[in-house]
Amino acid sequence: MALMARPKEQAARRQELVAAAGRVIVQRGVRGLRVKDVAAQAGISAGLVSYYYPDLGDLLVDVHEHSVDRFYWSRMRLVEGVPDAPGRLRALAAGGLPSGPDDELCLTLYELHLHAARDRTHAALMTSLFDREVSLYAMVLQQGAAAGELHLAAPALDVATNAVALEDAYGLHVVARNSRVDAGRARSLLLSYLAQATGVDLGDEDPRATPVGARDAQG
Amino acid sequence: MALMARPKEQAARRQELVAAAGRVIVQRGVRGLRVKDVAAQAGISAGLVSYYYPDLGDLLVDVHEHSVDRFYWSRMRLVEGVPDAPGRLRALAAGGLPSGPDDELCLTLYELHLHAARDRTHAALMTSLFDREVSLYAMVLQQGAAAGELHLAAPALDVATNAVALEDAYGLHVVARNSRVDAGRARSLLLSYLAQATGVDLGDEDPRATPVGARDAQG
Repeated sequence: MALMARPKEQAARRQELVAAAGRVIVQRGVRGLRVKDVAAQAGISAGLVSYYYPDLGDLLVDVHEHSVDRFYWSRMRLVEGVPDAPGRLRALAAGGLPSGPDDELCLTLYELHLHAARDRTHAALMTSLFDREVSLYAMVLQQGAAAGELHLAAPALDVATNAVALEDAYGLHVVARNSRVDAGRARSLLLSYLAQATGVDLGDEDPRATPVGARDAQG
Repeated sequence: MALMARPKEQAARRQELVAAAGRVIVQRGVRGLRVKDVAAQAGISAGLVSYYYPDLGDLLVDVHEHSVDRFYWSRMRLVEGVPDAPGRLRALAAGGLPSGPDDELCLTLYELHLHAARDRTHAALMTSLFDREVSLYAMVLQQGAAAGELHLAAPALDVATNAVALEDAYGLHVVARNSRVDAGRARSLLLSYLAQATGVDLGDEDPRATPVGARDAQG
């Protein structure tokens, strides 16, 4: 094998494997992840997969870490450019739900989150994403309240925690194709909760008009 | 094999296998379910497991159906004897969250629900439980509003849907041992949402004082 690649190439190869493993997880689930599927998906030999990841568990952790970061930073970016608190809340709500039942990033995250019930490392990653999302919401809520734009019906941290919990729960129904809770209904229920908790009408325009797709555009 | 058991014995044996498979799923996950583990857990031969369930997928569906029914009817029973709407909401909230990270029924349900993202039958079972739980909440909310006991801040169906979604999401954090969202915090966040949506203080007593345990007592 033409191994001993330079560090930069090694990092690039690991990234390819993380992306390939993510796709395999969407198809086969966390427990169905096998070296040969990752190899096939990445178009390299099983031996090379095992060279970069002698332990498949480490690959799983890297996939989870990568998915968590990608999801979080895309939400962060959606909020950054928006000047007013209601607009920031709308942007947050748009980025917190799957775009539809085939949203691969969300599917991967749900698979890995459930794995958290059985594994401490994955539990820590799930918690870290939850905490960061809650903080993001709490920050937007506190700033909005301080500026007099929002009137909170409960402590910002409670509203923020409930908002992220609603996203997680509805997201699961969206990817499970529950006909009663599709992406549109999930969005409208989340916005209705946020409106109720902030005293501000957050509207309910077509989710496709808001930058959910921005998440898919970046790697 | 001493097969050809009478229908009544067959039903009893199937129930044993469903219970055994539930315990295996808690330990190994849905994808880790194997005939030999169910056999070992039930204390019978693998051949006998295959006699009753030639297709392991059918056993999985029976476990899901059984878990959904058990969870739903225990919630129904918790509500039945309570005379006032705030009390019924408290009873619902108590029965909708895992008692702790080792709540086996909830762990089984989460495993099978996630399976829903890949399988239509399991998706239908997940949706049926969600719908029934939402209906139960909606009924309590509507009755309470009609009696002037509750003052709803949003349509009963929206509040009911959000409440069940919060339970599902926080339940997952509880079983994943998220230190920020344990059973107590989950309960208090859910009650705070319900209080906000109904205009009624629902208190926040110790969950152990309420009949969550009633669910575990029945088979």
